[in-house]
Amino acid sequence: MRQVAMYAPGDVRVEDRDNPVILEPTDAIIRLSASCICGSDLWPYRGAEPLAVTPQPMGHEYVGVVTAIGADVQNVKVGDFVVGSFVASDNTCEICRAGYQSRCVHNVMMGAIGTQSEYARIPLADGTLVATPGQPDPDLIPSLLAASDVLGTGWFAAVAAEAGPGKTVAVVGDGAVGLLGILAARELGAERIIAMSRHADRQALAREFGATDIVEERGDAGVAKIKELTHGLGAHSVIEAVGTQESMDQAIRATRPGGHIGYVGVSHDVSLDGLELFFSGVHLHGGPAPVRRFLPELIQLIWDRKINPGVVFDLTLPLEDAAAGYTAMNERRATKVLLTL
Amino acid sequence: MRQVAMYAPGDVRVEDRDNPVILEPTDAIIRLSASCICGSDLWPYRGAEPLAVTPQPMGHEYVGVVTAIGADVQNVKVGDFVVGSFVASDNTCEICRAGYQSRCVHNVMMGAIGTQSEYARIPLADGTLVATPGQPDPDLIPSLLAASDVLGTGWFAAVAAEAGPGKTVAVVGDGAVGLLGILAARELGAERIIAMSRHADRQALAREFGATDIVEERGDAGVAKIKELTHGLGAHSVIEAVGTQESMDQAIRATRPGGHIGYVGVSHDVSLDGLELFFSGVHLHGGPAPVRRFLPELIQLIWDRKINPGVVFDLTLPLEDAAAGYTAMNERRATKVLLTL
Repeated sequence: MRQVAMYAPGDVRVEDRDNPVILEPTDAIIRLSASCICGSDLWPYRGAEPLAVTPQPMGHEYVGVVTAIGADVQNVKVGDFVVGSFVASDNTCEICRAGYQSRCVHNVMMGAIGTQSEYARIPLADGTLVATPGQPDPDLIPSLLAASDVLGTGWFAAVAAEAGPGKTVAVVGDGAVGLLGILAARELGAERIIAMSRHADRQALAREFGATDIVEERGDAGVAKIKELTHGLGAHSVIEAVGTQESMDQAIRATRPGGHIGYVGVSHDVSLDGLELFFSGVHLHGGPAPVRRFLPELIQLIWDRKINPGVVFDLTLPLEDAAAGYTAMNERRATKVLLTL
Repeated sequence: MRQVAMYAPGDVRVEDRDNPVILEPTDAIIRLSASCICGSDLWPYRGAEPLAVTPQPMGHEYVGVVTAIGADVQNVKVGDFVVGSFVASDNTCEICRAGYQSRCVHNVMMGAIGTQSEYARIPLADGTLVATPGQPDPDLIPSLLAASDVLGTGWFAAVAAEAGPGKTVAVVGDGAVGLLGILAARELGAERIIAMSRHADRQALAREFGATDIVEERGDAGVAKIKELTHGLGAHSVIEAVGTQESMDQAIRATRPGGHIGYVGVSHDVSLDGLELFFSGVHLHGGPAPVRRFLPELIQLIWDRKINPGVVFDLTLPLEDAAAGYTAMNERRATKVLLTL
């Protein structure tokens, strides 16, 4: 099979690999229907994060059809169309049952396996994969793929930020996750959604997903603008979807005392000042999104065509051209790249 | 009147001052029935925090009898016995109504006024003071005084940590706030309460307040012990009541993914690593406790003799001997010092 691998920052190749096989009785093998490139894949691409191995198989988002299952797998069968989280989980341990499947005691990060590929082995298939009600229409595939990470992550951020009726939600970050955080906040009933974005195309998508206000300013000026829009108090809920010092500071300062921050940008060189956080009086919650918690609900919303998160994919390329996809995302010519198979 | 003032680290004096008078129509004047020394008063005493002014009037906890009210005060009257928070609040703004009175848009920190004194001016009396059902029996006064800060703060920490039925709660810090966090966790129905303490007298009080387990280890060893007691997962809820780098790290590391930390130790030189916090997956909430939110409930529990938080005062001295009280607390010969008037 063909699989994307990163050899070094900026060096992405598509290569031949042996097809994966069942290693554990809880495994499933899927043939991917589509894969994609994540904003987090850009960290090693930019050299901001080391590669775990060289070459590093890439990708952790996936949808596809089950082609084989291990002896213990009961919840999915060969032929099922499935969506899974970017973290494999048993969905039975105490942490999973509390809704934190991304921190399952047996969790496996799918990024170590690599799903920018034709086939993938999915560990803990029963706890990880969710079958769709049937074979999806092709136009639903991008949205189902989005559920695997960016939608699930944006949704978690909105839930963690306690977006809901009567709330003003500010969203820091206009990447795919931030944009889908807007969609989630709208679905959760938020009254007002302020998108922080200075790119016309992303502002347009933000509005399509439910943003009621756009703030172009960043840093202190952005915070001042959010305060101005909220009677000087700050937003009730802030979604942080970047992961830098500036974005975290902006999120904390834009939230009112007692408000909630849902942060899902993987923190890079971020250090939070204890005293500032203390006096901010905010609730801070985030981390790797427990996408599995939300998958059944998200799949249904997509299946019923109530949400259309797949529009975040603004560039579609064949898997063979993955390198061009990385370049496009890195240069911000694309928000999110879908890889066809 | 007599009032405690700090001139420099370690230099605490009791001096004559003019009696306070009504300055705003929303003020009340109270004659204190008792005051006390707070763990946070030790920060400037140790030189770990600068004095705002020199000399600095000290104290922010108070109970007493109303002796005068401004023209606009309606909720308390002369002669009422009252308890108030260490932060004066209007209790009507949007932040107050959301339960964050310590961050009221008109908040006044009582520490700037100083309540280790015979009389005190209480700004925003209607939103700050809560009258007891009648004149309290003298033995209730220490508990009512505790409600003004340490009990209210420990209670907030337990609420922020979402202590409750079925939960294992770990408490970092065996000062008055940590000990009363234990009491709060018990009242909130926690199943198991682990006190982190290495002082026999405080361990005894922790058990009296409801601790089911004692962990003497600190730092990484303390975290390992909490994990050992919780099937390797960490506590559901952690109360942090110290405010140092070590205590915050200990709290974050002792909490399971998806668990809740309520932190109320005023952070001093604390810096949180973004990546560690991200992957911890915890909920973090804290800050200056909105004691006013809890006062009616806490006063009733004390009035009905259902809780006895006043036992945290293990040294009682006349106001004139405040300096000796600071020394005793600084040398950890006393957990909390009550000053009589």
